[in-house]
Amino acid sequence: MEEARLIKFLSWIEEDVVFWDETSRLLVPAGAKAIGRVLAKAEGVVAGVEFVEPLLRRMGFEVDVHRRDGEAVQPGDLIMELRGDARKLLEVGRVLLNVLMHASGVATATRGLVERAQRHGAKVAATRKTLPGLRALEKMAVMAGGGDPHRLSLSDAVLIKKEHLRFAGGVGEAVRKAKEGTSFTKKVEVEVETPEDALEAALAGADIVMLDNFSPEDVKRALDLLKREGLRDKVVVEVSGGINEENVEDYARLGVDVLSSGGITHSARALDMSMEVIPL
Amino acid sequence: MEEARLIKFLSWIEEDVVFWDETSRLLVPAGAKAIGRVLAKAEGVVAGVEFVEPLLRRMGFEVDVHRRDGEAVQPGDLIMELRGDARKLLEVGRVLLNVLMHASGVATATRGLVERAQRHGAKVAATRKTLPGLRALEKMAVMAGGGDPHRLSLSDAVLIKKEHLRFAGGVGEAVRKAKEGTSFTKKVEVEVETPEDALEAALAGADIVMLDNFSPEDVKRALDLLKREGLRDKVVVEVSGGINEENVEDYARLGVDVLSSGGITHSARALDMSMEVIPL
Amino acid sequence: MEEARLIKFLSWIEEDVVFWDETSRLLVPAGAKAIGRVLAKAEGVVAGVEFVEPLLRRMGFEVDVHRRDGEAVQPGDLIMELRGDARKLLEVGRVLLNVLMHASGVATATRGLVERAQRHGAKVAATRKTLPGLRALEKMAVMAGGGDPHRLSLSDAVLIKKEHLRFAGGVGEAVRKAKEGTSFTKKVEVEVETPEDALEAALAGADIVMLDNFSPEDVKRALDLLKREGLRDKVVVEVSGGINEENVEDYARLGVDVLSSGGITHSARALDMSMEVIPL
Amino acid sequence: MEEARLIKFLSWIEEDVVFWDETSRLLVPAGAKAIGRVLAKAEGVVAGVEFVEPLLRRMGFEVDVHRRDGEAVQPGDLIMELRGDARKLLEVGRVLLNVLMHASGVATATRGLVERAQRHGAKVAATRKTLPGLRALEKMAVMAGGGDPHRLSLSDAVLIKKEHLRFAGGVGEAVRKAKEGTSFTKKVEVEVETPEDALEAALAGADIVMLDNFSPEDVKRALDLLKREGLRDKVVVEVSGGINEENVEDYARLGVDVLSSGGITHSARALDMSMEVIPL
Amino acid sequence: MEEARLIKFLSWIEEDVVFWDETSRLLVPAGAKAIGRVLAKAEGVVAGVEFVEPLLRRMGFEVDVHRRDGEAVQPGDLIMELRGDARKLLEVGRVLLNVLMHASGVATATRGLVERAQRHGAKVAATRKTLPGLRALEKMAVMAGGGDPHRLSLSDAVLIKKEHLRFAGGVGEAVRKAKEGTSFTKKVEVEVETPEDALEAALAGADIVMLDNFSPEDVKRALDLLKREGLRDKVVVEVSGGINEENVEDYARLGVDVLSSGGITHSARALDMSMEVIPL
Amino acid sequence: MEEARLIKFLSWIEEDVVFWDETSRLLVPAGAKAIGRVLAKAEGVVAGVEFVEPLLRRMGFEVDVHRRDGEAVQPGDLIMELRGDARKLLEVGRVLLNVLMHASGVATATRGLVERAQRHGAKVAATRKTLPGLRALEKMAVMAGGGDPHRLSLSDAVLIKKEHLRFAGGVGEAVRKAKEGTSFTKKVEVEVETPEDALEAALAGADIVMLDNFSPEDVKRALDLLKREGLRDKVVVEVSGGINEENVEDYARLGVDVLSSGGITHSARALDMSMEVIPL
Repeated sequence: MEEARLIKFLSWIEEDVVFWDETSRLLVPAGAKAIGRVLAKAEGVVAGVEFVEPLLRRMGFEVDVHRRDGEAVQPGDLIMELRGDARKLLEVGRVLLNVLMHASGVATATRGLVERAQRHGAKVAATRKTLPGLRALEKMAVMAGGGDPHRLSLSDAVLIKKEHLRFAGGVGEAVRKAKEGTSFTKKVEVEVETPEDALEAALAGADIVMLDNFSPEDVKRALDLLKREGLRDKVVVEVSGGINEENVEDYARLGVDVLSSGGITHSARALDMSMEVIPL
Repeated sequence: MEEARLIKFLSWIEEDVVFWDETSRLLVPAGAKAIGRVLAKAEGVVAGVEFVEPLLRRMGFEVDVHRRDGEAVQPGDLIMELRGDARKLLEVGRVLLNVLMHASGVATATRGLVERAQRHGAKVAATRKTLPGLRALEKMAVMAGGGDPHRLSLSDAVLIKKEHLRFAGGVGEAVRKAKEGTSFTKKVEVEVETPEDALEAALAGADIVMLDNFSPEDVKRALDLLKREGLRDKVVVEVSGGINEENVEDYARLGVDVLSSGGITHSARALDMSMEVIPL
Repeated sequence: MEEARLIKFLSWIEEDVVFWDETSRLLVPAGAKAIGRVLAKAEGVVAGVEFVEPLLRRMGFEVDVHRRDGEAVQPGDLIMELRGDARKLLEVGRVLLNVLMHASGVATATRGLVERAQRHGAKVAATRKTLPGLRALEKMAVMAGGGDPHRLSLSDAVLIKKEHLRFAGGVGEAVRKAKEGTSFTKKVEVEVETPEDALEAALAGADIVMLDNFSPEDVKRALDLLKREGLRDKVVVEVSGGINEENVEDYARLGVDVLSSGGITHSARALDMSMEVIPL
Repeated sequence: MEEARLIKFLSWIEEDVVFWDETSRLLVPAGAKAIGRVLAKAEGVVAGVEFVEPLLRRMGFEVDVHRRDGEAVQPGDLIMELRGDARKLLEVGRVLLNVLMHASGVATATRGLVERAQRHGAKVAATRKTLPGLRALEKMAVMAGGGDPHRLSLSDAVLIKKEHLRFAGGVGEAVRKAKEGTSFTKKVEVEVETPEDALEAALAGADIVMLDNFSPEDVKRALDLLKREGLRDKVVVEVSGGINEENVEDYARLGVDVLSSGGITHSARALDMSMEVIPL
Repeated sequence: MEEARLIKFLSWIEEDVVFWDETSRLLVPAGAKAIGRVLAKAEGVVAGVEFVEPLLRRMGFEVDVHRRDGEAVQPGDLIMELRGDARKLLEVGRVLLNVLMHASGVATATRGLVERAQRHGAKVAATRKTLPGLRALEKMAVMAGGGDPHRLSLSDAVLIKKEHLRFAGGVGEAVRKAKEGTSFTKKVEVEVETPEDALEAALAGADIVMLDNFSPEDVKRALDLLKREGLRDKVVVEVSGGINEENVEDYARLGVDVLSSGGITHSARALDMSMEVIPL
Repeated sequence: MEEARLIKFLSWIEEDVVFWDETSRLLVPAGAKAIGRVLAKAEGVVAGVEFVEPLLRRMGFEVDVHRRDGEAVQPGDLIMELRGDARKLLEVGRVLLNVLMHASGVATATRGLVERAQRHGAKVAATRKTLPGLRALEKMAVMAGGGDPHRLSLSDAVLIKKEHLRFAGGVGEAVRKAKEGTSFTKKVEVEVETPEDALEAALAGADIVMLDNFSPEDVKRALDLLKREGLRDKVVVEVSGGINEENVEDYARLGVDVLSSGGITHSARALDMSMEVIPL
């Protein structure tokens, strides 16, 4: 919600300001006005603009958006322009760039995988490997890059991992227990380690099967088993573990539905930007 | 402060849990106990352990730390082990890894620069280009990697940037105004764009001069100007802008004091880890 | 998460205490110890115990639980016993009862519907008509009463209501748009107002169809249409609107899957309880 | 205070939204405008409008209020109309109804008792048996229904209950201790279990005596004792315990001053309402 | 409530620490233990010990209290001793002293007035002129000094000030309106500016009359008017405005009930203390 | 940051209001408008206006400022005027005065020292002896009075106190360790107890030496030692401990740089003010 995001954004600025901006207090006249122009310094996909725009307005800035979430930028492109109190602009500037550069980095990394995966009809999805406190921002950035956000939290959907199986018996039994016990509004996904377990999961009624750290050969074998049993259309097949721009097509071309990647969130390089400040 | 960090850490877990962990509710018996073993899956420098250890204890886990902040790890190394309620362990697990992997990624990136810079007697410093909400965690990770945290916030020290100069006149005038107006407990740093401005800053009494996006040649020229005026020892010289493992020694060997990098925080690759969960 | 619940619980006590408990300050000796015995004063199903128990322990009380969530009670039954500082016990007492009485009222109302619905193999589900701030507590109480919590929030699952259709075209189009646009981890539900729309929804691939304010006759007609098209097993059929103990079986016996009710949360009568305080 | 209420209201919306409204994201165009019309679906007394109106304005909606707190409504009556961003309206809609339906339910239940009690010149009062987090909202709703809010919190006034007497000696002694020790700005009330204790309380100077779970006969005896000692005018007599629409006049006609009821807050049925959404 | 106070106390420490204690990080070994001895450096009355003691324990310190709230101290007296982690002790030390010194300053100033007033049987009361954020701490300190805390907040009791009279008609009318409209659990006080208004207030049924900025002569005249009408025992008479150690007896000896002072909270000199830290 | 200050200011009002302003509810018509005129009742220096002005505007008041932070006032002078909703004005009034009176008291006390110290070219500085929760407000008030705020928090600068020396060896060793270990952006200050230690500190490279509780004679001796070693210009000399209006010149005239005082914050008398409320 916008208000919750505003509170978070203000806490990020507060983390940077703490008491006051000592430099602006000394050198920028109280009441001075300025324009801030956010410029791309690298090529990539923009994200985070949708997140910050309403917040900046509520902080009293006039805002012109030149690139929306999901749009491509080249070095030198103007992304957004804000206008308002100069001290406040300088106070918010670094945090604004930190948000936009990170979100755009995530979107750019996502787009890199998406472009390759969709040649073969597969989707790219994120994981819960997001940076602490940035879950919503990163999931939105993944969508801006064309990806699927996957589960947003532990209460969204059931995802049975190998850790759970140690408490819950075999794949089939765990899936059946989960289907029976969870709400009819939720899907049940299970992470498996062998093609045979993938089949067992599908037979037990899993909505989604995640093939964890499979070689392309094992993925193929899992898909074949599912097809042989007439279950391929009943279950979404997701592949996870070490997916990157080099190997994503090796998996995608096998006919899986979804490729998920932690790296697009936890290891995205920031998309470089700067803010030019012009006194009015 | 430990308590403030605990509140932050809990909010990160809350972001991941929201209502409850639906999968554990269904499959992990209430009251079950487990061990969680955090293992390195790549080579690097550990950080974040100091941050999370007291918090995990206060959440009721027994914790054994095997690698402390700043220590090196190889794939397979045990970093820490926690023991406690199984549902709670699963609830906290992903966030714990997200914190450790990111902090260790920052420390590893920092160490990469530090090893090169210190061959020439130079320090590596971070910037304010930290991810929103993670300022303290990342600055601590930089220190674990052997780096200098630099300013922690806008109220710590004066750092006059080119944006301020547009409101405050020339470099020399701005430095003098700042020295006069700020507390005697604070240092005054100024970012400059030419060797001549570096000299002007030093003459005006700046404690630190940051050479922003200088070529090695211009850095050399700036240092020569300072030496010629007998000012080299009166001022800390920091170089910033595009510093990376490839070029850091080109600058360090010129005799600058500090090399600062935004990339060690905003674009650090996570150091891969996993948590093995063993029922008790 | 336990910690988040503790913060909420403490804020509820704070709302009641504000500055301090003036009566206890005057009449209860500092340091006195006491036992508090929570007793049922009416017949029903207990809930909220699971919610408060760990919180009371963390506040320093010894706690013995005699009735767990979902268990039946008769007037006079002991539900839980706590032991600790007398002033603190008196400070927490009223809020503790307010929580338990409300949660147990919700569980009792749910159980009333569940017992009738399950004779016909139907489930009972809650809605988002929960009291503000009590979402998790009430959803847990619904589960204690044998009900399905349904969506926990607006980000959990897609539920297309008639308000959305005004912006999104017909039922079929809206369902298709939603299926295509939402994450593969989420189900898509749609609220319909005619049997024909129910069919259209199922044809478009809805996972769940909610028949809103249907008469039993219209429910029957909707089910017949779905069966005729071979879609009855592809879609969960939920009936909503004015479900109560009197009419729930009229719907359940028609063969619907789920009956949802706002009244079990927003209009549940508290299950009466008292706390006897015994000085130690 | 308005600002504190806004924060609370936003936290209630946040509880419902969590990350974002997935359905509106998919089906409602960004920037679309709409009208929301809140309509009564049952007969009763409105409350909560005064609470939400300024908050909705501060969230950017235009608001027209058609029924104020304390006014009667019939099914179909328009209570309020809001106009603004369609996605935001849908985001806030359910919570708004949850607040208004509950508050109006409390006001309606209160009015039911008030109409009967005031025939005999008695007041109706609430208790501290309010739902957690809703103290202010419910106390305002009680006033909208014509009731007295009674103590707002434990720091407002002294109310000696039987639990305190176990630590503090007899009724008379406890009252004297409280009168002596509390601020001259506070009243002292005491809960008694026999007519004789009521007299002892009055003799000791209690400002208010609460006859707890008295039969009408015992109430009469207590009043007679007070009159006989010339104390009837010196003390407010409150009756509490199981007061409802059936028995309220049996007590009120005896000449007591106040009848208090927990049921008007903890067991009020919601007053049914709906919100019609019209795209603009 | 203890928990709410802990959160406040931690926020005060956080205000002082911000990121970390840089000096202790450099010079105090991690894990070192120490004793902290809080010593009085001036004569006065201790307060704040009751406030901080449970909080310090919950932070993990062992605490020995040597002087309780309300006890007198001489320079050199040991007030409390805490034992625990040395870094944490240094982190908390300054804030602890800031709290104790201020609270004890308030208690000492209160005691100064109380000793004089009670010679004549009058009480001393505080006002709402408390320092922002410190209401509960200062009201407790006033009680430690033997004073009456007066109203704790705007929702506690009715106090009609001259600002209200401008909206509400004359003194008598305002008092009657307030008595009729407020809860039977609250007292009604009115601030008056002439002896005649004091009489009007008492005739209208005010529980407390505050003579605002009256000369001793006017106080006497007000008391005489009340006595003449037989109202002196029906109303508490409070005198306010410029009360200090010099003039308090001039008012007290006239037979007023309460003397209230803003200065005991807003202008109290801190009672000087220090904390000696001894490594273990 | 303005937003963080607003949240703090609102929490202060909330502390005073709690549920609602019962008196205004009864006597001030909803929707009435009023002017509030803040008037000085004593002579002094104004502060806090800069802090509250933007906050009052954001709460919906029109604000005219007649005296800015740092300006002198005489009794009767108009400081600020606000215009808006009458109930809200009364709700905010007391807290507003509590803030302004305290901040102005701090500024006035500071100015008293500053005027005397600057005759001899010395600065006056505050300490960390600020009232809990009021650090930023008081440091701003000190600046309004012409003083230096000194360290804002424990993470700003290194200040080695005698407590640290017990863990860290002698003065020289501690200073060297701190200089080596802390960031190049921070100054290192050390508190010493003898003239010889002052010299040792300066020799070790301390940026600032604080002479703690020195007699004027010892201060002189310390300065002489520093001059003799040619170090007087390399180090800032601060004197602390019992500085007041009587003795400040005795120290200042010796040629020290800074005189710091805890009393200007922890024991400042409030500057008396009142708010006149005029209905519109």
